[in-house]
Amino acid sequence: MIGYGFMGAAHSQGWRNARSFFDPPLRPRFAALGGRNRDAAGHLADRFDWPVVETDWRALIARDDVGIVDICTPGDTHAEIAIAALEAGKHVLCEKPLANSVAEAEAMAAAAETARARGIRSMLGFTYRRVPALTLARRLVAEGRIGELRHVRARYLQDWLGDPAAPYTWRMSRERAGSGALGDIGAHAVDITQYVTGEWITGVSGLTETFVRERPLADGSGGTGQVTVDDAAVFTARLGGGALASFEATRYATGRKNALRLELNGTRGSLAFDLEDLNVLHFHDATADTLTQGFTRILVTEAEHPYLDAWWPPGHGLGYEHAFAHQSVDLLTAIAEGTDPEPSFADGLRVQRLLAAVEESAAGNGVWTAVPTP
Amino acid sequence: MIGYGFMGAAHSQGWRNARSFFDPPLRPRFAALGGRNRDAAGHLADRFDWPVVETDWRALIARDDVGIVDICTPGDTHAEIAIAALEAGKHVLCEKPLANSVAEAEAMAAAAETARARGIRSMLGFTYRRVPALTLARRLVAEGRIGELRHVRARYLQDWLGDPAAPYTWRMSRERAGSGALGDIGAHAVDITQYVTGEWITGVSGLTETFVRERPLADGSGGTGQVTVDDAAVFTARLGGGALASFEATRYATGRKNALRLELNGTRGSLAFDLEDLNVLHFHDATADTLTQGFTRILVTEAEHPYLDAWWPPGHGLGYEHAFAHQSVDLLTAIAEGTDPEPSFADGLRVQRLLAAVEESAAGNGVWTAVPTP
Amino acid sequence: MIGYGFMGAAHSQGWRNARSFFDPPLRPRFAALGGRNRDAAGHLADRFDWPVVETDWRALIARDDVGIVDICTPGDTHAEIAIAALEAGKHVLCEKPLANSVAEAEAMAAAAETARARGIRSMLGFTYRRVPALTLARRLVAEGRIGELRHVRARYLQDWLGDPAAPYTWRMSRERAGSGALGDIGAHAVDITQYVTGEWITGVSGLTETFVRERPLADGSGGTGQVTVDDAAVFTARLGGGALASFEATRYATGRKNALRLELNGTRGSLAFDLEDLNVLHFHDATADTLTQGFTRILVTEAEHPYLDAWWPPGHGLGYEHAFAHQSVDLLTAIAEGTDPEPSFADGLRVQRLLAAVEESAAGNGVWTAVPTP
Amino acid sequence: MIGYGFMGAAHSQGWRNARSFFDPPLRPRFAALGGRNRDAAGHLADRFDWPVVETDWRALIARDDVGIVDICTPGDTHAEIAIAALEAGKHVLCEKPLANSVAEAEAMAAAAETARARGIRSMLGFTYRRVPALTLARRLVAEGRIGELRHVRARYLQDWLGDPAAPYTWRMSRERAGSGALGDIGAHAVDITQYVTGEWITGVSGLTETFVRERPLADGSGGTGQVTVDDAAVFTARLGGGALASFEATRYATGRKNALRLELNGTRGSLAFDLEDLNVLHFHDATADTLTQGFTRILVTEAEHPYLDAWWPPGHGLGYEHAFAHQSVDLLTAIAEGTDPEPSFADGLRVQRLLAAVEESAAGNGVWTAVPTP
Repeated sequence: MIGYGFMGAAHSQGWRNARSFFDPPLRPRFAALGGRNRDAAGHLADRFDWPVVETDWRALIARDDVGIVDICTPGDTHAEIAIAALEAGKHVLCEKPLANSVAEAEAMAAAAETARARGIRSMLGFTYRRVPALTLARRLVAEGRIGELRHVRARYLQDWLGDPAAPYTWRMSRERAGSGALGDIGAHAVDITQYVTGEWITGVSGLTETFVRERPLADGSGGTGQVTVDDAAVFTARLGGGALASFEATRYATGRKNALRLELNGTRGSLAFDLEDLNVLHFHDATADTLTQGFTRILVTEAEHPYLDAWWPPGHGLGYEHAFAHQSVDLLTAIAEGTDPEPSFADGLRVQRLLAAVEESAAGNGVWTAVPTP
Repeated sequence: MIGYGFMGAAHSQGWRNARSFFDPPLRPRFAALGGRNRDAAGHLADRFDWPVVETDWRALIARDDVGIVDICTPGDTHAEIAIAALEAGKHVLCEKPLANSVAEAEAMAAAAETARARGIRSMLGFTYRRVPALTLARRLVAEGRIGELRHVRARYLQDWLGDPAAPYTWRMSRERAGSGALGDIGAHAVDITQYVTGEWITGVSGLTETFVRERPLADGSGGTGQVTVDDAAVFTARLGGGALASFEATRYATGRKNALRLELNGTRGSLAFDLEDLNVLHFHDATADTLTQGFTRILVTEAEHPYLDAWWPPGHGLGYEHAFAHQSVDLLTAIAEGTDPEPSFADGLRVQRLLAAVEESAAGNGVWTAVPTP
Repeated sequence: MIGYGFMGAAHSQGWRNARSFFDPPLRPRFAALGGRNRDAAGHLADRFDWPVVETDWRALIARDDVGIVDICTPGDTHAEIAIAALEAGKHVLCEKPLANSVAEAEAMAAAAETARARGIRSMLGFTYRRVPALTLARRLVAEGRIGELRHVRARYLQDWLGDPAAPYTWRMSRERAGSGALGDIGAHAVDITQYVTGEWITGVSGLTETFVRERPLADGSGGTGQVTVDDAAVFTARLGGGALASFEATRYATGRKNALRLELNGTRGSLAFDLEDLNVLHFHDATADTLTQGFTRILVTEAEHPYLDAWWPPGHGLGYEHAFAHQSVDLLTAIAEGTDPEPSFADGLRVQRLLAAVEESAAGNGVWTAVPTP
Repeated sequence: MIGYGFMGAAHSQGWRNARSFFDPPLRPRFAALGGRNRDAAGHLADRFDWPVVETDWRALIARDDVGIVDICTPGDTHAEIAIAALEAGKHVLCEKPLANSVAEAEAMAAAAETARARGIRSMLGFTYRRVPALTLARRLVAEGRIGELRHVRARYLQDWLGDPAAPYTWRMSRERAGSGALGDIGAHAVDITQYVTGEWITGVSGLTETFVRERPLADGSGGTGQVTVDDAAVFTARLGGGALASFEATRYATGRKNALRLELNGTRGSLAFDLEDLNVLHFHDATADTLTQGFTRILVTEAEHPYLDAWWPPGHGLGYEHAFAHQSVDLLTAIAEGTDPEPSFADGLRVQRLLAAVEESAAGNGVWTAVPTP
C-alpha cells in the first residue's frame, strides 16, 4: 500500500477487516507500506503492523512479496504509480479520482486493459458502491422495483469551506488537485448514480463557482493563496434511458457534513439515500396497496442484506470504514476467480470525461455538452 | 369571488377563517360567487353561504356590494377579469399564475400600477408565503441568521402523472394551461426562493422533458390527447448576491405528493423546509457552540411564530388551508391601511419572465439565459 | 353549543366545516351559543355567526330550534348540563373528560342509556379518534395487519408547566379540574389505545408526581396557589389480549408540545403515531419481503384514507381542527341513521374508572389495580 | 481474552482498533484466546491473529504474558473466571451482565475491591457508555444543560422473538441465562440511564411477561423447550433527584432491531437518543430564543465530540463496534494512570440488584420495591 494519510488508515482497516470478518478466497497479508515521508508512514505502519516501510514506491512495487498495490496517494501521482505497478504484474487498487486529467486517465485505462490480457486485475476505489444500502439500491433497481427511471437527484454536500477564514490548502490549487468540489466529491455523486441506475449520463449543463478566491496561508505568514478550483458545482443532465437529473457538489453547504444524497424516481417506485445516515435506505413501492404506501425506512442491517452476514446482529449499524472491507473482499474474490472487479479504470475514465464535460459546459455558461458513452 | 373549484373552496375557507380567528381591520362579507356553471357554483355557494351566484363575471364585478374581487379561475382568464375589476375600482386578489403569457402578465401589472394610483390594491395568490414556517424563514434570513447566501435548493415534487395510463386533462395542453409542471408548481418554488432570500434570480440554465406525449382521453372514447406541455423541468440559476441555485418541478416524483422543498445554505447558517411537513422549519446555526450544533427542528406552532397567536395552543398543527386565511388578513390589512400588499402583480410578472427564460433556455438546450430584474 | 373558550372555537369550526366540506345527511345550523360571560361568548358568537347568545344554559336547552347540545364547558359542569339536555330530548356531544368523578360519569352514562331508548343520541368528544391516521391505524389493526398484539407504548407529552415560575391556574386545583395531566391528557392516551387496539385495559400499576407544589398567582398579588393535582403520571398495564403496555402523561416534557404518541407491536407488524406529525402513520409489515422491510411513513392524505376525500389533494396536510369536523359529521350521520355514535358515554365512564384505578394504584405506591371491563 | 462468539469478535476488534486509531499509554498485544471449543476459538484466533488458543481458562489466566483478562463468555461463568483472574493479579474487563445472580455479583464486587487495594483494575462492559452520543449526553447533563431532571424514558427494543416459531435457545432458560430481556438488554437501559443522568434509581414497580412459553428445539427432533425467562419487562421508577421514569425491555417489538432509546426531560432542556441511529443525539435547549427552539439533531462526528478526533472527518459515521475501542482505550488509560475505570463491578452489582428488585416487584404484581443505593 502506498500512502499514509486518511485514506491510508481507511484502506489498512479495510484489508484487515476483510480477513477478520469475511472468508475471502485469498487471504491478504500486509507486506509493505510506501510513503515518501518515513516518519509519517512509519507512524501508520506501527499502528497497523505493516512490517516494512518503503520510501520509494518503485522499490515497493519491485518487491516479490507484494501481489496487490493499493494506491492511496494524491491524484497527481496515480497514473505513474498505477501504470508501473500493472506493468510489473501487480494487481492494483487505486483510490479515486483515477487521475487529475483525462489524458492520464486514458493512459491508465489503456494500461489496465493491457494488463487484463495477462490476468492482472485493476479496480478503482469508488468505495461508496459497497455501502450496503447503495448495493441494495442497485439490486432493487436491477430487479425492476422502481420501474422506468424518470428522475435523479444526486448531491454531495460538505461545509468545511463555509468559513471564509478557513486556511488555504493544496486542495484549492488546480495544479495539485485537478479540480475542487466537482472532482473531489461530485465524482462520487456521478459514480453512484451510474452504478445504482445502471445507466450512463449522456450530457450535462453546468455552472461552477468559486465563492472565496483568496484564503490565508496556514503558515501564519500573513500571506494568502489563490483558490484556482471550484468551490461548488451544480449541473443538470440526461441519462441514457431518458431520465432528467440534477447534480450538485459543494464544500459550502453549512451544516451538511458528508451528505452524499441520491434520490431516484421511477414509474413503479422510488429510492432515497443519505450517507450521513448510511445504514438506511428509503424505498417507496408504488405498486403496493394505496392505503399503506409510503417511503419505507429500511434499516440495512439484516443478514440478508449485502455484506451484512459477516458483521453484527440486526440493528447494530456499520460505519464509514466498513465499505473498505467490502471493497477488499470483492477485489480478492475477483483475483481468485479470474474475473474483472468493478469499478474498472475504464469506469473511472468515463467519470473523468463527464467531469471534464461539466467544466467545459460551465466555461460556456451552461451550454449543453454531450458525454461520450460506451 | 370567481371560481368554484379546488381553489374556490380554499379561498372561501380563507376568507371565513380570517374573520373567525383574526381581527382584521376590515371584516369580509361574502357578497357573490361567480361561475359560468350555475350548478357547480351553486354547490359551492350552498356549502359556504355565498348569498348570490353570478354566471357572468362582468355582472359580479359591477355589483355595488362587491369591494374585493377574488379570482380563482384558470389562468387563461385572469388578465381579462383582473383588468376589468381593477378598472371598475375593485381591489383584486388573483390566484397564481398571474397569467398564461408574459404579455398578459405585463398588461395586468400595468393595470395594477394604474389602479394603485387610485388607491386600488392588487395581490397575487402565492399563498405559500403565508405558511408560517416560510414566513419565519424569511424573517430569519432578513435578520442575518444564515449570513451571506451561498446555495439554494428548491424543488416542487408531485407524482400524479407517474402512471403513464393516467388520463389526459386540459392541464396538459399548452393552449389552455400555458405550461406544465414548470408554470404550475415550479412557479411556487421560484417565488418562495425570491421571497425567503430577498434576492432576485439573475439568470437560468434549464432542461424540460415530456415523458409521456400521448395520454388516453378521460371520456372513454378510446381516443388520446397530445401532451404539449412539460412534464418536468430542472434548472440551475444564480441569485443577485452570487449564490448558486438548483431548481426542479415535476409531476413524476413517485411517492412525493406535495413536496415543495427549500434549502438555503449561508455563511452563518442554513434553513430547510418541506411542505409535506408544513409546521416544521429546520434551522442550523453555525455560530452556535460546536458541541451542540446541528439542524434544529422548529415546530412552528408557538404564539410567537407568525400568524400563530390566532390559532391553537403549541403543537396543535395547522393544515394546508390556513395560509389562505393569512393571505386574506394581510390583504384586508393593506386595504385598510392604504399600503401595498405583497406579492404584487409586478412580482408575478417577474416570475412569469423567469419561467419564460427557463423555457427559452430549454429550447436552446440549456444555454444560459439572463432574467431581467428590477 | 355551550362554552366559548379554546374548545368553543374548535367545535364551531368543526360544525361549520362539516357542512362546507362533507355532505352530512343532516345539515347543521348554528342556533345559539351558551356562556355565562356574555361578552366573551358574544365575541365568539360574532366571529362564527352564532345568531343568539344565551347566558343561562337552561334557556339554551329549552329552545325549540336546538336539536343538538354541544357541551364545551369545564368538566365539573358536564354532568348537570348533559343530563338535563338528554332529558330535554336533545342529542348531546360532550367534550372530554366525561366528568370529574366516576360518580358523575356513572350518572351521565345512565342518562345516555335512558335517552337512547327514546332515540336520543350522545357522544363523547375524544376527537383524536377522528384524526385520519388514527382512524386508519384502527382499521389496519382490525384487519389483522399487525397480528396478535404484544406491546403498547402510549404517552401524551406536553411541556407548558416545565417552568417552575409558570403561574397557578384552576387546572391545578383538584376541586376544579378533577385531576392533572392524568385526566386532562392521559385520558386521550387511554382512549386512543383502546380504540385503535379494540382491546380493554384490564389492570394498571401507576405512579404520579407533583413536581411543583406551589405556584405564583397570576393576579400579581404575590400570593401563591397550592397545586393539588398530579403534574405527571406513569403507569404500566395489561390488555385483554395479554399485551404489556406502558403509559405516560405529563406537562413537564420539555420540548414536547403536544406529543400524543402511540406505538403498537404485534406478531405480524407494528404501528407508530405522533400527534405532532398528525398527517403521518408509520407501519411496519413483518410479513413483507425481508429485504425491503421497515417502517413505512404513510402520508395519510390520499382520497382512499379516512375522511380525506372531502378535503384537499394528496400531500396537502390537515391540521388540528379537522378532526372536529369529522366528529360532527359522524354524529350527524348517526342521528340521521338512528345508530349509536362512538365513543359513547359508557366508553367515557370506562376511561374514568381506569383513571381512578391509576390514582388508586399510585396512592398504594404502584400496587396492581384491576379495572372493571364489560 | 476468553470467549469466541459475537462478543469475542467485538472485543478483539476493540483492542485492535484502540491501538490503530488511538495512542493509549499502554499498547495492547494479543496474548492468548481462551475457549473450550478449540475449533471455534481457533477460527476466531485465526481471523484476529491471536497467537495462542487455550482451551482451559485457568491456563490462560496463569500465563505470564497475560496482563489483562477480557471475559466474553456467557454470564454464568463470569464470577468464577473473574475472581480467579483478579486473585491472579490480572486486570479484568468483564462483559455484562456482571453475573447471573446477585450473590455472584456481590462476590465479584468484593473481589474487585480487594484487588483494587493491590492496584489491580476491573471494569464492566457496559460498552454503550462509550457510544460518543451517549458520552456527550452525560457531559451535557453534568454541565446543567437540561437543568433539574423531571422525566426519563428508557427502553431497549428488539424483535428477534416476535415469531412464535423461532427456535428455543439457551437464552430462554433461567438456569443458563439468569433472566430474559430484562437482564440481557434491560440492564443496558438501566445502566445508561444512571450513567447519563448521574442519578441512582431508588425504587421500581414492574411487570414481566412470557408471551410464548414453549418453543421448538433447533435440533429438528420435533421436541420443544420451556421458556423460563421473561420475554419482556416494563417498569416505572423514581430517581434520586425526584424524576419519574419509565423503562421497557423486550424481544417482541416488531420492526425495532436494536432500539436502545433514552429520553430525558429537565427544567432547562431535553435529550433524546436511539441506538439504531447511533451517531445522532437530539438536544432541546429550553433556554434558547423561543422563535428558534426545537430539538437539534446533533451529528456526533465532530473532532470536538468524545473520542471522535481519533476517527474520520465530520459526517463519516461510526458503527456498533467503535465503542469497544473506546472502552479498551479507557481501561488502558486507567491502568497506566492508576485510576479506577468505570463502570466498576460495584456499578454492575447495583444494576443486578435493581433487576432483582424488578423481578421481585413483578412477582408481587407491581408492588413498589426499593432499590438499595450507595
